[in-house]
Amino acid sequence: MKKMFETKINQLKDLIDKELVNIYPNGPTLLNEPINYIISGGKRLRPILCLLVCESFDCSIQKAVIPGLSIELLHIFSLIHDDVMDKDQYRHNQLTIHRKWNTSVAILSGDAILALAFKRLNKTSNNIKELFNSALIAVCEGQALDIEFENLKNVSVKQYLEMINLKTGHMLGLSAELGGILSKLHKEELFKLREYGNLIGRAFQIQDDILEVISNKKIMGKSLNSDLLLGKKTYPMILAQSKFKKDINYIRKVALNDKEKANLLFKDLLINEDIIERCMKFVDEIFLKANSLVESIDNNNNLINFTKFLQERKC
Amino acid sequence: MKKMFETKINQLKDLIDKELVNIYPNGPTLLNEPINYIISGGKRLRPILCLLVCESFDCSIQKAVIPGLSIELLHIFSLIHDDVMDKDQYRHNQLTIHRKWNTSVAILSGDAILALAFKRLNKTSNNIKELFNSALIAVCEGQALDIEFENLKNVSVKQYLEMINLKTGHMLGLSAELGGILSKLHKEELFKLREYGNLIGRAFQIQDDILEVISNKKIMGKSLNSDLLLGKKTYPMILAQSKFKKDINYIRKVALNDKEKANLLFKDLLINEDIIERCMKFVDEIFLKANSLVESIDNNNNLINFTKFLQERKC
Repeated sequence: MKKMFETKINQLKDLIDKELVNIYPNGPTLLNEPINYIISGGKRLRPILCLLVCESFDCSIQKAVIPGLSIELLHIFSLIHDDVMDKDQYRHNQLTIHRKWNTSVAILSGDAILALAFKRLNKTSNNIKELFNSALIAVCEGQALDIEFENLKNVSVKQYLEMINLKTGHMLGLSAELGGILSKLHKEELFKLREYGNLIGRAFQIQDDILEVISNKKIMGKSLNSDLLLGKKTYPMILAQSKFKKDINYIRKVALNDKEKANLLFKDLLINEDIIERCMKFVDEIFLKANSLVESIDNNNNLINFTKFLQERKC
Repeated sequence: MKKMFETKINQLKDLIDKELVNIYPNGPTLLNEPINYIISGGKRLRPILCLLVCESFDCSIQKAVIPGLSIELLHIFSLIHDDVMDKDQYRHNQLTIHRKWNTSVAILSGDAILALAFKRLNKTSNNIKELFNSALIAVCEGQALDIEFENLKNVSVKQYLEMINLKTGHMLGLSAELGGILSKLHKEELFKLREYGNLIGRAFQIQDDILEVISNKKIMGKSLNSDLLLGKKTYPMILAQSKFKKDINYIRKVALNDKEKANLLFKDLLINEDIIERCMKFVDEIFLKANSLVESIDNNNNLINFTKFLQERKC
């Protein structure tokens, strides 16, 4: 059963990948090379979710390929620019664009990929275009809050959730809703799908925060450990700060002289004091809540299987 | 007569400025502040051109305010990101965003302003949306070529013109064409308007290259002298390189130890060897050609007056 679903996921991924390789065949070298370099990596989770919803509701998957592609492009655009802002060195097991080329090329490729996303969108309805726009603004606002929080001493769980809703939840919510719109579902079902997407997006982001601590660079395919050093407010960090203020202050002091040691101490604290376990429990609760929203409309278990697929991810 | 036209230009600018101040009233501080900071400056030439065309053809100016606003936002987005790439310190007599805040805030504000441009565009026709998309891709490609050229020893006039057509001409062409589309003009007239815009865009860019040499920072409101140092291929530089290779090589050597002296030598060469004068002549020819395209359709002389207005600009 699990294997069958994974095969399905891979087939849907192939559909998107096939479109992606033709996204920018010509143009100036300094755009063409980085664009075709960066589109080679990625899990394509957002378009896959969109396509899965379409399949669940007997809507032709082909209809969803172009909107799905636009979602993925918008996602790639945001990763390129975020990696510059967060000074990340690796993504999908390869150097980030700003590291392989430079910041200018990264800014420019991101901009061009966004333009390509909007170009594909022109073939869709005005409603879909408007939803895309709101998602783009949400992604920017989420990233702005993320940077703002770096300079705040204390960030509440509520503030953190608001930030990741904008940064990650909104786009996954849109992906699910888009599948519903293409399947001509009613308002009520669309609302459920969007909420489902928002929640798995939220869980996904916290999973990322956890994986930054317990996974390793090779599995994750991206630079780890940058979060603590940049003062990023992750969910484990917020929990740790509220319960182990003294330890965090000490680790911060250590970081001034020995970043490596500080990271090891931080990791140790999160694991030994069961913070990571609490985070994992919270993630499971969110996934459960997401499922409860769509159980009644999930005809062929696509969404419940998708949740499970995400829940078990190691990278 | 001249004064009357300037009054008209100012009235049209006010229409756009009024819309711009309401473009992003809320949202995270790190987006809200830089966005509202940066929109306060600028000549609004692109939307003004669009509105002027509408007025020429008895189309309600109000119809063009939103598309014009989107053009201006797209332009502002490109300036913010270009200033990061070119490491420019000043724009419109104020610090650039990446200098006043940092690179992350500049990338992010640019992205958000682009999102706001597309949001406004949703109210326009699909045709207009597609033209906008092409313009955005053109702007990215022009900037990519501009950066590519920095690392080339020799760039031909043809290559240079291709680059500024994409970077500057395309958007001014779109501005004029958009006015024509809103005025429901025929294909032939639309073509003339677009070509007119392309050409004044080209002239405008070469004027900028010239002003970098003969104007001063206070009048221009932006950092000068950065072009030579960055190896930027401007029109005066390309002419100088083809005729005074030895001098340019010498100046480049001087620049390694004394950038200030190199800039003075370069300026001196361009002025004394009549390169600036040749550039100015070329600009006049382009403006003349632009006028010849629209003379027959320019009912109330709006376009001819606009050309003159640009021709006489000092900043």
